Amino acid sequence: MSSTDTVPVNGKAPSPRTRVRRIAERAHYDRDTLYAILDAAYLCHIAFADEHGVHCIPTACWREGDHLYIHGSNGSRMLRLAAEGAQVCVTVTHLDGLVLARSAFHHSMNYRSAMIYGAFEVVGADRKAAALDAFLNHIAQGRAHEVRAGNRNELAATTVLRLPLDEAAAKIRTGGPKDDDEDLGHPVWAGVLPLALKPLAPEPDGAQPADGVPGYVMEWAGRAGGADQ
Amino acid sequence: MSSTDTVPVNGKAPSPRTRVRRIAERAHYDRDTLYAILDAAYLCHIAFADEHGVHCIPTACWREGDHLYIHGSNGSRMLRLAAEGAQVCVTVTHLDGLVLARSAFHHSMNYRSAMIYGAFEVVGADRKAAALDAFLNHIAQGRAHEVRAGNRNELAATTVLRLPLDEAAAKIRTGGPKDDDEDLGHPVWAGVLPLALKPLAPEPDGAQPADGVPGYVMEWAGRAGGADQ
Repeated sequence: MSSTDTVPVNGKAPSPRTRVRRIAERAHYDRDTLYAILDAAYLCHIAFADEHGVHCIPTACWREGDHLYIHGSNGSRMLRLAAEGAQVCVTVTHLDGLVLARSAFHHSMNYRSAMIYGAFEVVGADRKAAALDAFLNHIAQGRAHEVRAGNRNELAATTVLRLPLDEAAAKIRTGGPKDDDEDLGHPVWAGVLPLALKPLAPEPDGAQPADGVPGYVMEWAGRAGGADQ
Repeated sequence: MSSTDTVPVNGKAPSPRTRVRRIAERAHYDRDTLYAILDAAYLCHIAFADEHGVHCIPTACWREGDHLYIHGSNGSRMLRLAAEGAQVCVTVTHLDGLVLARSAFHHSMNYRSAMIYGAFEVVGADRKAAALDAFLNHIAQGRAHEVRAGNRNELAATTVLRLPLDEAAAKIRTGGPKDDDEDLGHPVWAGVLPLALKPLAPEPDGAQPADGVPGYVMEWAGRAGGADQ
């Protein structure tokens, strides 16, 4: 390990396993940066291990306070293990662009990522409905009070887990290529090809209520370019 | 496990750990489906374990033939472990939309995901430059022959690994919500809010060559909406 590996910037890593080692100047350990990355996400990837080895499973997530929440069927192997306290690593990644440098070696990607280590806690029956409401409102603000609420059987069949954000780190790359000085005259286009996860026009399904389209769907359609829906 | 867990559809799982258990009708085990998901991706998440536990790390990837490739600095902890033959699970996920059902319980997401289990192989020095060319051409077709090529030191500092796609499975959800019949009259908007990773206008960096903008940047700009670049 080089000497730069031991000098966290942008705050201090909360634990050895959250300390960013590769390109440590991209690391951030503050809550605002972490929350912004998590709140912009609809899904995370969860690494865990069982008797068959390691697994990496994508699942929906949302943040409330200083916890990241997931949910799913009681029958899920991952949720069963996580509910038993298995150690996990949960990662959220937003790809923001392809960085095209003048040399092959300095090509890169712009991204915002967050990694959280720890063990999930089971959200008890008394808090489960409220947590799932928060999930629906993360997807579409206000929707939790419009839909047919979960009934006793549905809630009983659903596991909700939350992971404390105590052991978390963010890593961000922004900006253009970092070429070597001697390559700056190389005659090739250089810059960033940005990417973003963007809304497309809403697709209504079957019969719709007479009293119109909710604000969050209108807003989505607007961001999608005002396409008819 | 329910009886449906033992009946793979859309082909047969190549191994027990690649058999999709939750909602098995979303599983696909054919090469065309797998390749399409991998070829649409710029990055994957890699789960692996070391003496500190499990990790989940995002990294760039590309496919050539029946292997998924990654690369990075020789100093990367993940690459060092992977080069030593550590078992990994590599996952690619495309989020295609939020599925808004009439009941809270049936909300879902549309996605295309691929999981690959196995151990990476080291790509030898004689094949490294060609593999990295393929990566650049995956990012921008033709670019490998425009940039300043990797020199001996740069290639020596880079590890390239490839994972056989022998143990892989895809999982896909498409379409609208699957509401219970008795909820179809519930007065709430229902449908899909689609999402896609979309190009934004290219951002040139510093001095550019006199002979104009390459085709892949023009094409990117066109897909981004023809914004000036």
